[in-house]
Formats: sequence, structure tokens, C-alpha cells
Amino acid sequence: MATDRRPIVDLSEAEARHRLPLKWGVPEGVLAAWVAEMDYAVDPVVLESVQRMVADGITGYPVMEDPQLAESYAAWSARHVGWAPEPEAVQPVVDVTAGVRLAIDVLSGPGGVVFPTPGYNAQHGLAGVTGRAEHLLEVPPSADRAEIDLDALDRLLAGGAQTLLLTQPHNPWGRAFTRAELEGVRDVVVRHGARVVSDEIHAPLVLPGAEHVPYLSVEGTHDHAVAVVAASKAFNTAGLRCAQLVVPDPAARQRLADQPMSRNDSWSPLGATAARAAYDHGDGWLASLIERLDEQRTLLGELLATHLPEVRMRPVEATYLAWLDASAYGHDDAAAVALERGRVMVSDGASYAPGSTGQVRLNFATSPERLTEIVERLAKAWV
Amino acid sequence: MATDRRPIVDLSEAEARHRLPLKWGVPEGVLAAWVAEMDYAVDPVVLESVQRMVADGITGYPVMEDPQLAESYAAWSARHVGWAPEPEAVQPVVDVTAGVRLAIDVLSGPGGVVFPTPGYNAQHGLAGVTGRAEHLLEVPPSADRAEIDLDALDRLLAGGAQTLLLTQPHNPWGRAFTRAELEGVRDVVVRHGARVVSDEIHAPLVLPGAEHVPYLSVEGTHDHAVAVVAASKAFNTAGLRCAQLVVPDPAARQRLADQPMSRNDSWSPLGATAARAAYDHGDGWLASLIERLDEQRTLLGELLATHLPEVRMRPVEATYLAWLDASAYGHDDAAAVALERGRVMVSDGASYAPGSTGQVRLNFATSPERLTEIVERLAKAWV
Repeated sequence: MATDRRPIVDLSEAEARHRLPLKWGVPEGVLAAWVAEMDYAVDPVVLESVQRMVADGITGYPVMEDPQLAESYAAWSARHVGWAPEPEAVQPVVDVTAGVRLAIDVLSGPGGVVFPTPGYNAQHGLAGVTGRAEHLLEVPPSADRAEIDLDALDRLLAGGAQTLLLTQPHNPWGRAFTRAELEGVRDVVVRHGARVVSDEIHAPLVLPGAEHVPYLSVEGTHDHAVAVVAASKAFNTAGLRCAQLVVPDPAARQRLADQPMSRNDSWSPLGATAARAAYDHGDGWLASLIERLDEQRTLLGELLATHLPEVRMRPVEATYLAWLDASAYGHDDAAAVALERGRVMVSDGASYAPGSTGQVRLNFATSPERLTEIVERLAKAWV
Repeated sequence: MATDRRPIVDLSEAEARHRLPLKWGVPEGVLAAWVAEMDYAVDPVVLESVQRMVADGITGYPVMEDPQLAESYAAWSARHVGWAPEPEAVQPVVDVTAGVRLAIDVLSGPGGVVFPTPGYNAQHGLAGVTGRAEHLLEVPPSADRAEIDLDALDRLLAGGAQTLLLTQPHNPWGRAFTRAELEGVRDVVVRHGARVVSDEIHAPLVLPGAEHVPYLSVEGTHDHAVAVVAASKAFNTAGLRCAQLVVPDPAARQRLADQPMSRNDSWSPLGATAARAAYDHGDGWLASLIERLDEQRTLLGELLATHLPEVRMRPVEATYLAWLDASAYGHDDAAAVALERGRVMVSDGASYAPGSTGQVRLNFATSPERLTEIVERLAKAWV
């Protein structure tokens, strides 16, 4: 695949407010560094694929099976992470969280769901939506490294939990789990006959120095695990509504196929088209994006060292979301202080780690200039 | 609202195959009269609203509350059916069936769901998806008129069912229920303290001679009912993914608001934009559509009288979907015979009325020429 490099185009604040209405639906004068969307223009190749479709008037139902999308994803995965499912294993869903819900609803036993925390705020409570208990598996702020505590996982599964909701690469830990770590998870899960749902929406966003290991590429996982993947996080197209569920086990696929169609028929054909364009033709843009995010990661480290030396940032191996422990500055609700005094909207850490204080998630997928302004404002607010 | 009339533009077969890939994903030589999509070009005003959005690069998350969409719907409803909810009652969902599921999941008791049949095939089994029993309330093919049997409803609710899934206008009965009928339903439901979810996606498609009475416009319904509405059926935009849930009871709204966001955050902002354009500016197209569908309805009656005099068609008061009893011609699976011998894909009645024979649903939202060809082929197949 020739990498016809395309540049990352920064959005002005006016453009960002127009194009990213959720993230930038903040009051005038406030900078948005919360919702996981990037202040960059969408890859024109992806946008054009959707524009052609709308220009052609294709606004109706999607086809029920989409082998082209499955093949595009499989080829992308083989090229980028050295492993790929067979296309038969890949089916569209409307978004990643809906795919997680579908997999738990249909494939998991009734026991509880283990959810490592700090965990993606939109998936807190998802276990309850499926009628199951939620068991938080906490990484304390004091931990040297954000890792899944296998002993704690073992205890929770021994106690009756039956599903692990794995987020990997992890949001908001910023971790890309190693093969050895994933093998450790697998061993514990297999010992208890539990299941894994692996949310890998951030897989394309692993930064230099780390690599993405699909959970399903780990030996002995196919009978107990599914992955949920998408192009939408890396390509800034969450609103187009298509993710993919990867189900390598034919028996599990059959169970899903036997469900009433109302379980899973809400994805958009525009999202499917955008995903195919991203998987087939997005490499030249994605390479530029990774370079930019790597630079932003370095810049953020420098800015924090200069302006907020007491903030502890977990190393960012993947994603564009930094997990900051600002508790040294003494603000319980550091996000509220950032907004009030600094006019910066970051995500409140307590929405990821219930009961925590002094933690925030910061989105650094913006311009160097805006990131600089953001950190300077945080320093003004917190120090 | 000035009705700047816009014409209905028929799609050639090649265009239909390109634009409606589910409906027209039939083998070459087969005519598609099954999936509920119309062989007409999308209203240019609606299409342009989406084109502008994509051209602007707006592909990210929707805002969590959309008062503009709510106001557009409320104004449309006031204008077209003489009743409107307060905008606070209207919230986006990804599609109508997802809205029905959300309402049952969150607002209904654990008792069973009464589903009048023949019933929309995609909602068969939906009760089970919510963990509830499904109780079919059958209209037998021999019934003079398709009506909800209030005595049967009363028995089912007395027996423990707690929700009625009302489809109105009804697909596939073709009925627009009268106010008196809806008052009868209300009385039975209230007597048992049950709930109603009213799927009103076909409300814009009531044909001359009938009128749409929103269930929520009937006195004494707000404390036990919600409606699910959409512009997508009338405007041929199912793939854009946005419907609206109407919840007049503030306590029910609060229960929904208290849910984790993963219950309902999958609608597309493109679908919301298309819905607003349809509600705000679609009247001039919708008026032309209703005229065309009225003509098609008349033509279908004439064609059946000429070519298939033994077919019994339920009167079509609304929708573009005719329910045909072809059992006089002696084919148990009339749809399969139509496909095999006539090269026409109609919907198998057994998917709407489990166990039924000789029934099909026919989509007449096409050109007069194609409808003529369809009925001639059915006659060739069945007679």
C-alpha cells in the first residue's frame, strides 16, 4: 500500500466549534480538551467517500452482511498489527459500546462484568444495562504502572464474575498491553471459564515505542473472546456510526446470527463506507496523524515539566488522552477548578474512577499552540 | 409554511439498485417489492442538508440534547396532525426499533409485551430482547377489518402482560386507528395499569380518507405511554439513523435521564440534520408523495381486480405497504412462488404472522409502470 502522505490540518477554534459540536459545545472563551475527538480536519479521502455516497442519494438501509467491510478491516489489521481475523468473523455494529453490549447480552453468562478502572466513562454502568453486576478492578493512583491486577481479577472471577471488559489500548490509562500481559489475562480467564470482550477502538492510535497486540492474536483466546474495533476514533468519524464486532468462534457467530434482527441492525451505511475508505486508503493520513500525536505527547511532557511539575502523567503509549494526577496541587475537583479559573474543559477523573480526586483526562489531539495555551491555563488554575 | 411543491422523481431500476442496496439486493431480473423503502429519489432539500454537513466535515459526536430537532418535530406534528408534545418531551434515538427497546427496557414492568399480529417483522422477538415474554394478539386473516381485539387485550393484560406495543398507523395492516379505537385501547390499558409504546413512524404516510391520531393526543395517556416517531420512513432516509422518542411524563423522562449514556447515545448527527430538514422544509415534497401514493393505491386496487381477482387486499388507509391474502390461489408460501415463478420479491406473510400461509406484504411505492409489471408477474406466478 503506497503511503500517499496527506498532512494533518489543524482546525481553527471557529472551525472546531462548527465541526465538533459536542466537544466544542463549551462557552465562548473556554478551550475544549475533554471529549475524545481531534481538532483536525477529517482525512479528505474518507470524507470524499461519504460525500460521493450522499451525492448519489444513498440514504437507505444497509445490507445485512457486508463482506467488503469485513475484508477491508481484515486487510488493515493484517497490515498494521500483523494479525487478522477471517472476514467471516467480522460484522458491523452501530458503535463500539453497542458492540460490547451486544456481545455481553448474547454471549456472556449472567455473572458480573469486571471493569478495570479508571475506565472509559461511557462504559461505566454498561454492565447494569445488560442486567449484570459491575465489578471495578481498580488501579490506584499510587500504582507505579497501570496494569491489570491478575490476582484481583482471579478473585473477582472466582467470586462469580463471568466477563472481563478489556479496553486495549486502554483509555484513559494510555497503555498498550504487551503480549505477556495479555497472556496473563488469558490464563486467569481460561481458568474460570470466563469471557473477554476486548474494546480495541484505539488500536490504530498506538504511538512509537509500543505496539498493539490484538487480544485475539493471543493463542487460546478464540473460544472465549470477541473484539470490538472501529476506524472512527482514529479518523474522527464517531458520528457516522459504524464499528465492527470480531467473533472468531463459529458457535458464537451462530448464536449472534440466531438473534432477532432488532439486537443489531442500527449501523449506518455511511459509517460503513467511511470505515472502508479509512481501512483501504487511510494509511497515508494515519501515518501523519501518528507523527503528530507523538510530537504532541512530547510537547505535553515538556509543558507539564515547565508549568506543572507536580502533575504526574501516566506514560502515554497509545491514544491521545493523557491521565493526569494533579492531586499535589490540592484540588479535589481539579476539572472544575480548571474550568472555572483556567477556562479549560478537561474530563473529570471521577467519571472514570468513581470517588477519585485530583485526577483529570486531557485530550492532546490539537495544535501545538492550543496545547500550550491549555497547559498554561491549567497552571494558572491549579497552582 | 409555503408548500413549494417538489415532484416525486422515480428511480430507474439501475438507480434503485445503486441507491437502495438492501431492497434491491435481489438477483438481476427480479423486481423488489419487499423492504419498506420507496423507489423515489430523496427530497433534494433533505439531501442537501446532509451534503452541506458532510462538505463541512461534521462527522463527530452529536450533542447530547438537541432542542432544535425537538422543536422541528413538535412544529411538524402541530401542523400535520393537530397535536404536538412540548419540545422537552422529545429526544433523539438511533432508530424507531431502538427507541421501542429503550422505552420497554427502562419504563415497563417485567411482564410480557402484547404484540398485535400480523406485526412488523423486525419487531417480532423484540420483547425477548428486553427479557420479556411476547404475547401475540392475532388478527385472523378471516377478520372483516384489522382491529385490536380489546377483549383479547384485556385477557392478556389480566394475565400479567404489562406493555402494549402499538404500531400506528399499522404496518402491515395499513390501518390508521380512529380516536374511538385508541380510546378503547386506553381504557383497557389504564384498567390494568399497563404501558403503551406507540410506534408512529408511518404517521406522515396517512393517505386521503384517513387521519393520524397520535396516541398521546388521546386524553389520559401521558402517564402510561410514549411514542416513537421519525421522518426517515416518509423521507426514505433509514440509513441516516435518527428517530425521536416522545416522553410526555416528566417522571419517565427523569428515569430515562438517569440511565447510563450507553443506553442511548448511538444516533447520528447526519440523521438528526436530515430529520430537521424534513420536518422544517419537507412539506412540499411530502404533499407530492401522498398524492403519488394515493394514485398507486388506486392503481394497485385496479390491477388486482383485473389480474388477481381472488386476492383480498386489506384497505390501505396509511403506509405504502399492502397486506394481501392470496390463499385463494392455493400456495402456502405465496412469496416463494412469486419469487420463483414471477421473479418478484414480496415479503413473506409468515414473517409478520407466524404460521400463516398464503399472505404477503407488497410495497407499492414505485412507479405506475413497475407496479403494473409487479402485479402482472404475481398473476403469472400465482394463477
